[in-house]
Amino acid sequence: MPDAVSILASPEQMAAIKFDAAGLVPVIAQDVHTRSVLMMAWMNAATLAATLAEGRMVYWSRSRQEVWRKGDTSGDRQFVRAGYYDCDGDTLLFLVEQEGRGACHTGEYTCFYRAFGEQP
Amino acid sequence: MPDAVSILASPEQMAAIKFDAAGLVPVIAQDVHTRSVLMMAWMNAATLAATLAEGRMVYWSRSRQEVWRKGDTSGDRQFVRAGYYDCDGDTLLFLVEQEGRGACHTGEYTCFYRAFGEQP
Repeated sequence: MPDAVSILASPEQMAAIKFDAAGLVPVIAQDVHTRSVLMMAWMNAATLAATLAEGRMVYWSRSRQEVWRKGDTSGDRQFVRAGYYDCDGDTLLFLVEQEGRGACHTGEYTCFYRAFGEQP
Repeated sequence: MPDAVSILASPEQMAAIKFDAAGLVPVIAQDVHTRSVLMMAWMNAATLAATLAEGRMVYWSRSRQEVWRKGDTSGDRQFVRAGYYDCDGDTLLFLVEQEGRGACHTGEYTCFYRAFGEQP
């Protein structure tokens, strides 16, 4: 099992994050090894704090309206290796160590497994 | 100047994209060479169609409420090399050839230039 390492964000860093009207911020998860973009999901202030503290990706499920501790059901957890916020403070990017078969509930490694245009 | 190559998406592919209540879908731009995540912005159906047809990233600016043909002002255009939609059809990922100094209006190469935690 990969190590879970917490990140201690400064008050200034946390204050820079802008949540939308629903209290959410979009979060991109990128595989730290392959550099593939795995998925995009959402966090609220509480699950962002949990992600940083636990060193594991903890999202907010908009469809289920509940905390989504990624991998608790599937076993395919995501361990945080670095976290970034963008110039506007309204999007986050995490580099993660992806456990198990991948990030997508379909069984695919990345959620972005379908391309526009003719398939090769 | 990099080549602009259009992508001919099928009707089935276009129908799979789900726009939100505001008619928008979040779009991740990733550098096809460095694999760095450059930015996240939004497209509506018209600017997605323009992006695929022109082979250049054309966003919808939520703050200005207008078409944002990335790089027309800054010169830092993004040329499309591949486009993907995710398992839910509600997020897009484009691999782009980034022109000029980078993607961010601050002058940084990527919008995600600030990390949580202590800086190395």
